[in-house]
Amino acid sequence: MNFPHHVTIVEVGARDGLQNETIVSTQNKIDLINILSRTGLTHIESGSFVSPKWVPQMADSLKVMQGIERHPGIIYSALTPNLRGLEQALEAGANQIAIFTSASEEFCQRNINCTITESLSRFQPLVELARRQNIPVRGYLSCVADCPYEGPTKPQQVASIAATLIEMGCYEISLGDTIGTGTPLRVARMLECVQNQVPIDQLAVHFHDTWGQALANIYQALSMGISTIDSSVAGLGGCPYAKGASGNVATEDVLYLCQGLNIETGVDLSLLAQAGWMISQVLGRQPNSKASLALKSH
Amino acid sequence: MNFPHHVTIVEVGARDGLQNETIVSTQNKIDLINILSRTGLTHIESGSFVSPKWVPQMADSLKVMQGIERHPGIIYSALTPNLRGLEQALEAGANQIAIFTSASEEFCQRNINCTITESLSRFQPLVELARRQNIPVRGYLSCVADCPYEGPTKPQQVASIAATLIEMGCYEISLGDTIGTGTPLRVARMLECVQNQVPIDQLAVHFHDTWGQALANIYQALSMGISTIDSSVAGLGGCPYAKGASGNVATEDVLYLCQGLNIETGVDLSLLAQAGWMISQVLGRQPNSKASLALKSH
Repeated sequence: MNFPHHVTIVEVGARDGLQNETIVSTQNKIDLINILSRTGLTHIESGSFVSPKWVPQMADSLKVMQGIERHPGIIYSALTPNLRGLEQALEAGANQIAIFTSASEEFCQRNINCTITESLSRFQPLVELARRQNIPVRGYLSCVADCPYEGPTKPQQVASIAATLIEMGCYEISLGDTIGTGTPLRVARMLECVQNQVPIDQLAVHFHDTWGQALANIYQALSMGISTIDSSVAGLGGCPYAKGASGNVATEDVLYLCQGLNIETGVDLSLLAQAGWMISQVLGRQPNSKASLALKSH
Repeated sequence: MNFPHHVTIVEVGARDGLQNETIVSTQNKIDLINILSRTGLTHIESGSFVSPKWVPQMADSLKVMQGIERHPGIIYSALTPNLRGLEQALEAGANQIAIFTSASEEFCQRNINCTITESLSRFQPLVELARRQNIPVRGYLSCVADCPYEGPTKPQQVASIAATLIEMGCYEISLGDTIGTGTPLRVARMLECVQNQVPIDQLAVHFHDTWGQALANIYQALSMGISTIDSSVAGLGGCPYAKGASGNVATEDVLYLCQGLNIETGVDLSLLAQAGWMISQVLGRQPNSKASLALKSH
């Protein structure tokens, strides 16, 4: 067991979460990010500059990111699919961007309409422009456990693409179990393989709780020294591949786990849970977080 | 890591689950247990002979247990607080009984109105009568991580009471995290301490998912060789100490975890999930199991 002393939470609720929910207003998004900025989080994914044709939920990312109150020391990042997206992100004041590809060929084809290799070439000019602007680039790698079309993903495939993203200039790779089918020993084997090619402190994990396994997987990842975790306030975000099923792991549940493991996050669970209740009320439902419900009922 | 090859699921939904839900009809309970009997489960907790004044949800346990179809090789167990309860359980055809105490003095006082020591003395004649009738006795030990009144429970206290229950004649002790506040490293420390006094194959774990930690805790317990897990179909059962929060971990989620760890359970996840949907429809809601929702939506 090699638990980290400190874990950085990358709060993805306002982007990865809300892009899989019904559309909420620009002001609600701004309010959410402003509340999140007061919880101790240091990285809040705040928007996406993907075509509004594909992701109408994120069509107002420019307004959102221009409307929020910036706190020093907080990264407000945005997803950028191409140079035009990067330009918009810069206009929006993103101080970090994220690019994304998949460890599964078929998922890549269906999701971004090109091969994995093509996706990496397309991102090369973005990474170069971002470097010239001193904007760090994060790489998302999806389907690291399974692909909804191809089945199990080979750990070596994950390792190899992660290494390529690092070589291209990403400072960190977020390994995403996009459909939430992973279980801890498979996650362990995947991480063992990837960390042979990418140092563990350049890896983050991004689990979806579709099959209820996210926290067990995160526990496994933490025990191997992973110290960056993507999670979503109130468990925002569904699973587009399993309608009605849940998506991102809830930040509240991750914070409670870390507290119990004496891992410092710097994030106030109670304040973060309040942010979750605020946005959940907008969506007309309870937070999709057991820790949040337990906290509320105490 | 010392994972077992086989895990026995003790299905507690029809008792521990339904006793914390609104009352469902006798026929619905019979139907549930009959469906569960066809899933491959080998132990189905089927009723409780506690006073109906305290637990009205279980007032019809005699009728339920007399109404179900018995399958050879399946244990249909019942909770028995006293000799009168044991007599009723025998009349009902229970082929195993369970007694219960707490690792927390104050919880014991508030829950069963006596000290832990008194509770053990009261159970002594039950265990003796059960032994004469060749009925195995299981011991439930609550508050093994925390008590809602006293806070953290000392692992040594858990170990010592577990050992006493074994000495009295229980064949197995189910260690219950009654309020679901435990996290994996604390669970590990507790189990390390208990297994110094009770062999691991006489220990079961019983986690509540109130704070979302149950599956991570179960993963930890499995890695230490625990091979019996209590769980509840569709996550039946709320948490009486945190209104609106969830209770027992869902059997479906545990089965999915075990499958992913290549641990055999003998239980058909798909059939069990169907049982969960049946009883959830009776309760007018969805199963409280992410694996079940994911399965349904595929």
